[in-house]
Amino acid sequence: MAKKVGVVGVGRMGANMARRLKDSGLEVTAVYDSRARAARNLAKELGCEACSTLPQVTALAEVIITVVTDDAAMDAVFSTKSKSLLTGAMGKLFINCATISPKTHVEVEKRAAKVGALTLEGCMASSITQARDGTLYLMLAGSEAAYKKALPILRKLSKSRRYIGPSGEAAKVKALVNMVMNINTAALAEGLGLGAALGLDLDMLRTVFSQTGANSRVLETDGEDMQKRDHECYFSSAHAAKDSGIALQLARQQKIKLPLATATKKQYDLMVDLGLGELDKSGVAELTFPGRGKNRR
Amino acid sequence: MAKKVGVVGVGRMGANMARRLKDSGLEVTAVYDSRARAARNLAKELGCEACSTLPQVTALAEVIITVVTDDAAMDAVFSTKSKSLLTGAMGKLFINCATISPKTHVEVEKRAAKVGALTLEGCMASSITQARDGTLYLMLAGSEAAYKKALPILRKLSKSRRYIGPSGEAAKVKALVNMVMNINTAALAEGLGLGAALGLDLDMLRTVFSQTGANSRVLETDGEDMQKRDHECYFSSAHAAKDSGIALQLARQQKIKLPLATATKKQYDLMVDLGLGELDKSGVAELTFPGRGKNRR
Repeated sequence: MAKKVGVVGVGRMGANMARRLKDSGLEVTAVYDSRARAARNLAKELGCEACSTLPQVTALAEVIITVVTDDAAMDAVFSTKSKSLLTGAMGKLFINCATISPKTHVEVEKRAAKVGALTLEGCMASSITQARDGTLYLMLAGSEAAYKKALPILRKLSKSRRYIGPSGEAAKVKALVNMVMNINTAALAEGLGLGAALGLDLDMLRTVFSQTGANSRVLETDGEDMQKRDHECYFSSAHAAKDSGIALQLARQQKIKLPLATATKKQYDLMVDLGLGELDKSGVAELTFPGRGKNRR
Repeated sequence: MAKKVGVVGVGRMGANMARRLKDSGLEVTAVYDSRARAARNLAKELGCEACSTLPQVTALAEVIITVVTDDAAMDAVFSTKSKSLLTGAMGKLFINCATISPKTHVEVEKRAAKVGALTLEGCMASSITQARDGTLYLMLAGSEAAYKKALPILRKLSKSRRYIGPSGEAAKVKALVNMVMNINTAALAEGLGLGAALGLDLDMLRTVFSQTGANSRVLETDGEDMQKRDHECYFSSAHAAKDSGIALQLARQQKIKLPLATATKKQYDLMVDLGLGELDKSGVAELTFPGRGKNRR
């Protein structure tokens, strides 16, 4: 079993996955982030190398977990045109956990194969707490060889794993999960926002929602936060905008019209435009509650 | 305890509530419907009077349950300008269960008070099966006197009751419940529809949804139906359009913009325009699955 692990992209999720892996007895040998300070701080905490180049991560680890921002960042860290994670990557395994478009996962798998490396999609449907506790829900896709090799590490990170199929397939499912989650979140913000405007007791309203056809997972995770304006970031509104965008791109390719996903993307884009992109996704309630966000009156 | 009950509006919900009340030992003395045949058939089944006029219902019953279509129908059955349920209504109690706008409930309560009758809002957040089994979820509003008098009958109809406040308040909560439910339903149709277009295994996709932030009550009640195109009507798309409309009217009055509720109303209006209004609300999937409804290709 591979024991030396590197982590590229040590934001809220990546950093906590690194902590968890160290706690569970693996050697976290290298961390990297485009924001050098974030990598340095985490390296100090974990007693490992804060790499200043990507090939250094590849050299120091057997398995490299990537949790980068978006397709562009993914393309860059797996560049074939300059030094990247692929430099000297023969025999290495990359577990790619960012929410990006399916086609980028497929492309990265191809590029890795050319240098003799394996890749696995490890799409996460959980948040920071689960990353820290090793109780993530992982949707996995890629070759059987990659999955087999990754399994011991995946077990440390997750309590629930679902192998979806070949490369790109987990990213499709993930895009759909987040698309529906984002719509349900924006829907809840509309229901509670209008309830507030009507002067209803929101504790009562949330209870009634929970007992009826209005119930949803996001009611449990975000309802009270919306009411109390507690938008500490677990999953940012900017990420919600990006992920709904991935799903809408897939829909355009399939010539399927999705008016609700479109309206939801617009709400999260508006959050970003208003400088609220780093609020948690529950912050979309700032757009629908009277006297908040742009509706201030 | 009042034992003689009349039911006005014996569609899917009203008819089953009447059956349930009879089964639980009350005397269902009178039924009425603008579609006379529906009333006759049910009267034959229950061995009661199929009234041809509204005052006849009021004369034959102590408590009258109304489950009519919309605000216009409610206004008509409680008309002050012609013979209506209010004719000879002194001392009677009306339990009004239709999903209509809050202001109509308030208006009807006023009209009833003038002739010495009580009204209670009994907004239902359940469906046909629960109506038949007496396990409805009821949101109640009105005077304490009306609530107290209604309670023995409400107990026969529901397993869960929530007193919300004065007249109009339960209808507000109900409008919000259905608004959020309708959005979540249309959201699910988008997620599963795009999943189908992408060639994903929809059993798998529904399972993943259920284990993640995409989970919702409507996933449980409507997910499989969407996949299998089983749109037998429990709650019609036409009713979904109407109820989202009630919520949007409240939002306009409060000057709150609700883009998702608006997009959802448009989807259900489109269902009606396409002649699909009598499909269950799950039928909104006809608009988002490739090769179905208007997306036929």
